[in-house]
Amino acid sequence: MTDINAVAKQFTDFYYTTFDTNRASLQGLYPAFLINASSTSVQRAHSMLTFEGSQILGVTDITEKLTSLPFQKVQHKVTTLDAQPSDPTMSNMIVSVTGLLLVDDNENPLQFSQVFQLVPEGGSFYVFNDIFRLNYGA
Amino acid sequence: MTDINAVAKQFTDFYYTTFDTNRASLQGLYPAFLINASSTSVQRAHSMLTFEGSQILGVTDITEKLTSLPFQKVQHKVTTLDAQPSDPTMSNMIVSVTGLLLVDDNENPLQFSQVFQLVPEGGSFYVFNDIFRLNYGA
Repeated sequence: MTDINAVAKQFTDFYYTTFDTNRASLQGLYPAFLINASSTSVQRAHSMLTFEGSQILGVTDITEKLTSLPFQKVQHKVTTLDAQPSDPTMSNMIVSVTGLLLVDDNENPLQFSQVFQLVPEGGSFYVFNDIFRLNYGA
Repeated sequence: MTDINAVAKQFTDFYYTTFDTNRASLQGLYPAFLINASSTSVQRAHSMLTFEGSQILGVTDITEKLTSLPFQKVQHKVTTLDAQPSDPTMSNMIVSVTGLLLVDDNENPLQFSQVFQLVPEGGSFYVFNDIFRLNYGA
């Protein structure tokens, strides 16, 4: 599983750098449709984001959510990064991240967990699933 | 997405109750093979567990790992639970959990994050992907 870990690292480096510097550009990562062409009938589905329990469907609403988050400065620091192939064809992958989030001038980082499912398309990977949660202490 | 959340809740209730009372029984949840029959050729893949960064493949090794964890008593408390369909056919799902773990007689709970991909088979759901991480503070 060396390859998949390298892709996961490359993806998360790109994702969090983009998130922390220019959130609007993230929209390019959430495809308008995921097409399942291996099935007998073509099936399409929107990218999904669940952000702190809010369910958001499709690139337009996802981009609006991400760009309207109420902070000016944000910095993600990845603590752990794990990846697994998510289907028997080994082309899609689940990426699980835990890390710390520094928001505005707050000196106390928040812990977060985030899960992506990445789907390959035209030499790149797109986000089909995205689940984000802050982790509060006991 | 009401249904999927109910399934996720039912699954995690069962999973953590079983984990906390009789870990060996978890083996029934990790199928020997996942078969992708919708493709032109039949593809098979083992269930996967990534436990604190260790990659474990297949039900036999997964069961050995889970039953050999070095504690006598363990209790999971789920704090957040999110689910999304993980493919356009809407049959598989990703379940993301954050929570607290009480181990043996330790009074300080540990935070954990866990991600499952569940795959339906014969009226039940099986675990194809499982990624577990403890979350340490800043």
